[in-house]
Amino acid sequence: MSKNEKTAITPTRSEDFPQWYQEVIKACELAENSPVRGCMIIKPYGYAVWENMQRIFDGMIKDLGVQNAYFPLLIPLSFISREAEHVDGFAKECAVVTHHRLEKDPDGEGLRPAPAAQLEEPFVIRPTSETIIGDSMAKWIQSYRDLPLKLNQWCNVMRWEMRPRLFLRTSEFLWQEGHNAFETEEGAREDTLKMLDAYAEFAESYLAIPVIKGEKTADERFPGADMTTTIEAMMQDGKALQAGTSHYLGQNFSKSCGIKFQGREGSEEFAYTTSWGISTRLVGAMIMTHGDDDGMIMPPRVAPHQVGIIPIVRDDADTDKIMSYAGDLVAKLKEQGVRAQIDDSEKRTGDKMWAMIKKGVPLRVEIGGREVDEGTLTHVRRDLGRDSKTSCSVDEFLSGVSGLLDSIHDELFNRAKKMRDENITDVGDLAALEEFFKNDGFGFVRMNLSFVEDADYERIKKEYSLTSRCMPYDMQGKVLVGKAY
Amino acid sequence: MSKNEKTAITPTRSEDFPQWYQEVIKACELAENSPVRGCMIIKPYGYAVWENMQRIFDGMIKDLGVQNAYFPLLIPLSFISREAEHVDGFAKECAVVTHHRLEKDPDGEGLRPAPAAQLEEPFVIRPTSETIIGDSMAKWIQSYRDLPLKLNQWCNVMRWEMRPRLFLRTSEFLWQEGHNAFETEEGAREDTLKMLDAYAEFAESYLAIPVIKGEKTADERFPGADMTTTIEAMMQDGKALQAGTSHYLGQNFSKSCGIKFQGREGSEEFAYTTSWGISTRLVGAMIMTHGDDDGMIMPPRVAPHQVGIIPIVRDDADTDKIMSYAGDLVAKLKEQGVRAQIDDSEKRTGDKMWAMIKKGVPLRVEIGGREVDEGTLTHVRRDLGRDSKTSCSVDEFLSGVSGLLDSIHDELFNRAKKMRDENITDVGDLAALEEFFKNDGFGFVRMNLSFVEDADYERIKKEYSLTSRCMPYDMQGKVLVGKAY
Repeated sequence: MSKNEKTAITPTRSEDFPQWYQEVIKACELAENSPVRGCMIIKPYGYAVWENMQRIFDGMIKDLGVQNAYFPLLIPLSFISREAEHVDGFAKECAVVTHHRLEKDPDGEGLRPAPAAQLEEPFVIRPTSETIIGDSMAKWIQSYRDLPLKLNQWCNVMRWEMRPRLFLRTSEFLWQEGHNAFETEEGAREDTLKMLDAYAEFAESYLAIPVIKGEKTADERFPGADMTTTIEAMMQDGKALQAGTSHYLGQNFSKSCGIKFQGREGSEEFAYTTSWGISTRLVGAMIMTHGDDDGMIMPPRVAPHQVGIIPIVRDDADTDKIMSYAGDLVAKLKEQGVRAQIDDSEKRTGDKMWAMIKKGVPLRVEIGGREVDEGTLTHVRRDLGRDSKTSCSVDEFLSGVSGLLDSIHDELFNRAKKMRDENITDVGDLAALEEFFKNDGFGFVRMNLSFVEDADYERIKKEYSLTSRCMPYDMQGKVLVGKAY
Repeated sequence: MSKNEKTAITPTRSEDFPQWYQEVIKACELAENSPVRGCMIIKPYGYAVWENMQRIFDGMIKDLGVQNAYFPLLIPLSFISREAEHVDGFAKECAVVTHHRLEKDPDGEGLRPAPAAQLEEPFVIRPTSETIIGDSMAKWIQSYRDLPLKLNQWCNVMRWEMRPRLFLRTSEFLWQEGHNAFETEEGAREDTLKMLDAYAEFAESYLAIPVIKGEKTADERFPGADMTTTIEAMMQDGKALQAGTSHYLGQNFSKSCGIKFQGREGSEEFAYTTSWGISTRLVGAMIMTHGDDDGMIMPPRVAPHQVGIIPIVRDDADTDKIMSYAGDLVAKLKEQGVRAQIDDSEKRTGDKMWAMIKKGVPLRVEIGGREVDEGTLTHVRRDLGRDSKTSCSVDEFLSGVSGLLDSIHDELFNRAKKMRDENITDVGDLAALEEFFKNDGFGFVRMNLSFVEDADYERIKKEYSLTSRCMPYDMQGKVLVGKAY
């Protein structure tokens, strides 16, 4: 696109990436800030994306033998204190419930927490549920025959955020948290990687986000974990985004929660547990991976509308025939399992087109009187830019549409993967690492793992706001370093 | 069943209905109490029921043009205070968040809310979201063209309960809350009834619970509503259970939240709003409607497993052929959209049968070596009691299974409807009302609506723990009175 051409989003990515991100969310009507500091409102279009993600991933984990359940929102203070590292990691910023009733404030107009209704033991709103689910596991698991036990919940969690950003870092967010228990260390370690593989498969095959699977260095582990594994993605500004984590918790939580069982030889043993989660943060990852200067590009497999239809009525006498033609098309697409929607609002055609572009509808279809007469339609791929118009017969479109959606998926994935692979730079020593980021180096740096123990590395990380992203499984002895969300 | 015959649940319904209810939940592994007072843990089998309910009802409301979204868990105190009646109704017992950080208690071993992290304005955990969703509606609705706006969220809510009971009355529960806004009073009133109809359809056609649609008397209205409509069901102990409510809120919330729009004539107007909800309480309603002295009977359309298969292996040499035969059956049932499961655990056959009976699996299938050789199976309908065994060929079973499940649904519905209809007693005056309940009358009483304004009615209600259940739409000028959950 030439520099003078107007973009739908201002500023553009190159002008101000963080601001571009906010503007895409606004233009795409995905979410907005709420009157509750740090908590977001997920708008219908954004929630529809999350619902599609849930449906797909929920099917994947059920196939892996995971059962959904639901555990309390509130966690007693004594529970969160049970695991020493865990409490340090999560007690810092959380919402604390201290009272169970409001009353009229005798000194003012409003309400106040009723002093007589102060709780003996305060609760925190769950920042994660290892401790409370562990408490149930301790009751439910008696024998090795009860293992493995694989539980998951789709729920809201809360971690007080001082610098919130929509989807990426919000005080309340939606997620799934899986909690599995095993008889052996080997079983739990295998499961940790199996769930990581599920995340990678989900990110790549449904969200079109290429990810690098790896293990976190000790300083980046989940509080209470013996091993944290991660899928890391590169955003278009070169920063890393942790897109999902799967933790091997060893016997840390089973010991602090009392998850004991009678083993095969009759002795009492502690279970080995894992936990694993992905969240609404993935919506942010999708935006920063696929969006362009005209707005969002929705990966087709989770797009709320895969096909958006714009009736182009130049002569009012054509309205009925165009609408009925478009309606037939939607019905036929639905039969094929394709999510399609007609924009039949009173907006002008140009505004409808721009709305669909900004919302990232993967395939835009335009139908005017001529198309109806000819039995054709015109379609435009969102990923190929504004001018990739193609005309074809309705039958051709119907037989090709799922292939087209697959192509869009592949194009988005390949584009992101190419960008990422071109922006991983090897450095031979810490001086080169520092030099790279001093010169505003873009993307990830790959270096020998041994450097992370050097005191100089701590200094450089701090100075350039870097973190060790992971030790990739397919890059033996290496660690990736970068700025991160 | 003769009195000497052993039942799976002790006590039986007639011995102690409330205790029977608790025991069924336990035997059926639906839920249990948590360490957080008043909050329940929904176990995998119970959660699977809720997921089925969600999936079905979510489809119904999407067909009615409702969009899902997500709003914050926390509500600022000032918001909940906006609507005068609403605050009186909901500020009484709610969880209040006052701090956003914990710290080590300097005087003890544990943690305490950090005094320096006290919130300027406390939050309550949403007991319902009219005020916070109203705040967004005020921003999103500008013109009559933005109406109707129909929003829903599936979420957790909290109302502090002093006398909690699993599913029926818990401090935290899961629900859907719909919030719709309209241009006119007529539109909102129509919508209130349309959503009530959806609830009635859902309860009757999917949960097999017959309900009476009606309007609540003024004293039983939702705090802040101009009209509350309800579906009321009769449990097997004759008590009423409010199974869903749909409220016409007039302009009360639009005025307190500022939901204004430019009308067709250019003038500024306040929207008319509705709200409507059903919750995990419906699981309790299902148990008390359909359960018997052997445990739960799951209405087939929401049953986690519609068909439960028990392999009966008398000779170990038969194991493989029986398991493969059962596996084929499951695969064929899945193809037909029937949820089926094999109990391949190490339990004894008798224990497997009783587990399925207690869990209320609608159709139990038994397969032994002889059945495999003959190409047959034996099936038992849970609703017809222990001895309704039928043998038939697998093909016959496959072609008849969805009809069988429909018959079970109908049987459960008709049985419950007959029980209810036989237990609505007409009384001609308040003396007769009192007489009825003094003599431990069972079920609902129907009387003239005019009696509800009599001071004596208040006294009788109090003395016998009665409430006005509703003014049924199909019983003009009448009100139903009864004890209730």
